[in-house]
Amino acid sequence: MSSARVLTALTRTLKPLDAYALGLGDDALIASHRLSEWLTRAPDLEEEVALANVALDQLGQARFLLGYAGRSSGLSEDELAYQRADREYRNCLLVELPNGDFAHTVLRLLFHSAYQRQLYSALGESTDGELAAFAKKACVEVDYHYEYAASWTLRLGDGTEESHDRAMAALTDLWPYTAELFAGDELVTALAGEGLVPEPEEIQGPWMEQVTAILAEATLGTAPSGTWRPGGGRNGMHTEALSYLLAEMQSGHREHREDRASAGA
Amino acid sequence: MSSARVLTALTRTLKPLDAYALGLGDDALIASHRLSEWLTRAPDLEEEVALANVALDQLGQARFLLGYAGRSSGLSEDELAYQRADREYRNCLLVELPNGDFAHTVLRLLFHSAYQRQLYSALGESTDGELAAFAKKACVEVDYHYEYAASWTLRLGDGTEESHDRAMAALTDLWPYTAELFAGDELVTALAGEGLVPEPEEIQGPWMEQVTAILAEATLGTAPSGTWRPGGGRNGMHTEALSYLLAEMQSGHREHREDRASAGA
Repeated sequence: MSSARVLTALTRTLKPLDAYALGLGDDALIASHRLSEWLTRAPDLEEEVALANVALDQLGQARFLLGYAGRSSGLSEDELAYQRADREYRNCLLVELPNGDFAHTVLRLLFHSAYQRQLYSALGESTDGELAAFAKKACVEVDYHYEYAASWTLRLGDGTEESHDRAMAALTDLWPYTAELFAGDELVTALAGEGLVPEPEEIQGPWMEQVTAILAEATLGTAPSGTWRPGGGRNGMHTEALSYLLAEMQSGHREHREDRASAGA
Repeated sequence: MSSARVLTALTRTLKPLDAYALGLGDDALIASHRLSEWLTRAPDLEEEVALANVALDQLGQARFLLGYAGRSSGLSEDELAYQRADREYRNCLLVELPNGDFAHTVLRLLFHSAYQRQLYSALGESTDGELAAFAKKACVEVDYHYEYAASWTLRLGDGTEESHDRAMAALTDLWPYTAELFAGDELVTALAGEGLVPEPEEIQGPWMEQVTAILAEATLGTAPSGTWRPGGGRNGMHTEALSYLLAEMQSGHREHREDRASAGA
């Protein structure tokens, strides 16, 4: 399984539920990496610890989901994480955007964790027992991520003029990307029909309610109204930012093949 | 306390035990940051999780030690972490060196964690109750870091020709810097005399025994014999590498003063 070409072919033929899990796993993997980028330049030590913990939780979720997604095809979590080309990643665009300032990171985490919270909560009722058990456990983690992001959204939005403006700019920049979270497609419709995963509409309502309540309390007004709604991440159509992220993320894996070989891994 | 000049003056007048704690806190802080640099480009997901956990432990130790070091002078952990100039950092040179490849990171962690293990173990008997309680708790963490580094040293040293050569190169590069860990000075001698901290010789013997046993088992031979023994970190004489690390580490703090102000932090 050393050839990227072969791996590419295989990920195109994943079973539907595996492909779905791969999308969620990629969300968590890429989100974890963006958060990790903060660790060498966080605003203060307390935030560095908090962001590191969120990044670790997301990485743990990614490991389960990638492992699950690849198992029936004989693909390991590491092969899926490190040996795919950009076009084979199925994460939503929201998580791959560059970090921007701290307000951008907070607003993105608010949107993403609120999504994971609703999604995992519904997935806890999946007819797939293994996925349901994972989702119930992960719910506890993303509840914390959400509380962290929500409290910072309030502090920034309802803080100084500067912090309010930064939070507002982040909201304007990021909001269009939230539509993709609930876009759905034939794959999701088919899986939802079998009770394996939730319908996007089922989680979009509670998500919107939760997020808009926080935005209002943070004096950031109502959700932006524009009609530009980028998407395509779940089908492998990504922004340039993902290419740079992957180039860095995959470099350590490539450089240390020998070490791994020596370990019999 | 916004002026770096004022802060510089204060760190020069820290009480002896505070100055000692600052050195250990800087060791942990800088070690944590070097490990965090791996998180966006780790060799595989399992190692990414392990390195992140070690980095988080070191960061937690740094927070306690910096908080302890600054308290009687009215300096916060964040002021000490982010508002000092290079010359005011008291970490040993070993932890500030660039990561190099994975073998370098493993060998450095072996040397540093074996040192912390002996040091914290002895510090657990300090007549300063607060420092003793911290050291006893931190011992459990660095035991894990040591086990992790030791197991990888064995896998790399006794692995393929390539991994052996890389481990050997790391040993040759890093070994000279280990002497500084046990250099001691008037400060340490005075504190040791009061039973507050261990004598360097007291921990050097067990450290050497532990480390050389692992090196032998990993087929990396005996400890290198060269006489070049760089030092000076505890007195603020650092390598160029620390300047670059600090430039990155302190940038997030500087950029987000407004956000923190808004939070009343």
